[in-house]
Amino acid sequence: VVSSAGVVVVGNEILSGKVQDLNGPFLTRELRACGVRLGRVAVLPDEVAEIAFEVGRMTGQFDHVITTGGIGATHDDVTLQGVADAFGLPLEPHAELVQMFVERTGEPPAGAAERLTLLPAGAELIRTGRPAYPLVRVRNVFIFPGVPRFLQQKFELLRPLLQGEPFHLRRLFLSVDEGRVADLLERLDRRFSNVDVGSYPKFDPGVDHAVEVTLESRNPEAADQVLAELEAELQADWIVRKE
Amino acid sequence: VVSSAGVVVVGNEILSGKVQDLNGPFLTRELRACGVRLGRVAVLPDEVAEIAFEVGRMTGQFDHVITTGGIGATHDDVTLQGVADAFGLPLEPHAELVQMFVERTGEPPAGAAERLTLLPAGAELIRTGRPAYPLVRVRNVFIFPGVPRFLQQKFELLRPLLQGEPFHLRRLFLSVDEGRVADLLERLDRRFSNVDVGSYPKFDPGVDHAVEVTLESRNPEAADQVLAELEAELQADWIVRKE
Repeated sequence: VVSSAGVVVVGNEILSGKVQDLNGPFLTRELRACGVRLGRVAVLPDEVAEIAFEVGRMTGQFDHVITTGGIGATHDDVTLQGVADAFGLPLEPHAELVQMFVERTGEPPAGAAERLTLLPAGAELIRTGRPAYPLVRVRNVFIFPGVPRFLQQKFELLRPLLQGEPFHLRRLFLSVDEGRVADLLERLDRRFSNVDVGSYPKFDPGVDHAVEVTLESRNPEAADQVLAELEAELQADWIVRKE
Repeated sequence: VVSSAGVVVVGNEILSGKVQDLNGPFLTRELRACGVRLGRVAVLPDEVAEIAFEVGRMTGQFDHVITTGGIGATHDDVTLQGVADAFGLPLEPHAELVQMFVERTGEPPAGAAERLTLLPAGAELIRTGRPAYPLVRVRNVFIFPGVPRFLQQKFELLRPLLQGEPFHLRRLFLSVDEGRVADLLERLDRRFSNVDVGSYPKFDPGVDHAVEVTLESRNPEAADQVLAELEAELQADWIVRKE
């Protein structure tokens, strides 16, 4: 069972504000829907050492690592080198990619095209016919393109490999200040290590509650039990509604 | 002159997809407009050790560090502890915050309210009258709330302290495949270390170009020189337009 993942978003164009990242939000939603806990997102520049450091940390912390962006034919595409360095692997021509290129163009890759056939040694290609260019896997790292449309297509190749247990969310909306329930929430959070208790104050005029309490767990009974205990301990008129 | 910053976004609610992060994109835009290079964005869970590790790395890598979220009265608000641990500082009641609380409520803070007065030792408060609650600074780390409206108000307290040199951007839109210009772009990127050369292929139907080349520098003459060399070396009919 896959339970956790980290995401590395690569690109100077993101950090400089020229392009807004759509891949982080997409992967956040989809991983959650697959029952996979997202442990960290790092948005990094096109720098080999930064990518190698972050991938190196995440590969040991999480079941899966997903990178987006920084693959292509130009000098600013350094994600594959970063992943290779994270594992101390060389970049080398991948026989299947070279063959694909030859079949498509009738000649061996040279110059910038050759870059597109270089992968960390031992990289595995994942494909199911479409999209034509495969998804690249190096150990527990899945290397995705930065173009959102292509990333989203390729994510369907990864989805069958992600089999987390789904999360169950209960929400309670309260009329009182967060400070009034802080001690109670802390006690419950400590007692139930398998339930993640969140508390989010709301300040916008027109919102019908002062704080939203979230209870989230892979175990739906545990989430329901904490919800029941919370309701029992709170004054009834503090509870605006629950979901 | 401030030249670089890192951003730490804290919150399980972001990583679990319950709330979409608006603060990262806001800070990305505003830092760029101030002429500050954003070196990295990390989206982290409500875990002290993760926050301490990331703040500890960023404080040495960048001129400024900005954290958002994870400050408040409940158990899941651990950003201040993370920042304290990054510097090996204790959390302790801050005299001015205690005084503010007493003036507002007529009694000393206790229980959850006391949490709100604890800051890393030596923390500095920055304010200009409004908003009422000050911006907290610990060395080169600025600690912002997670609520976007409050973060945006408080950013105006930081803006006068951010005095980077502005970036100058030139863009060239080409009709040819990225691979045809990759070697040329790499040569120019190497020759001009003060110009950041980017290359972004476009695949969407209806777009009038196949690749966008960006030239960005704090030195506008350098950006113009690379643009001129690029135009001189490219076939004239490859250039769709420039901006």
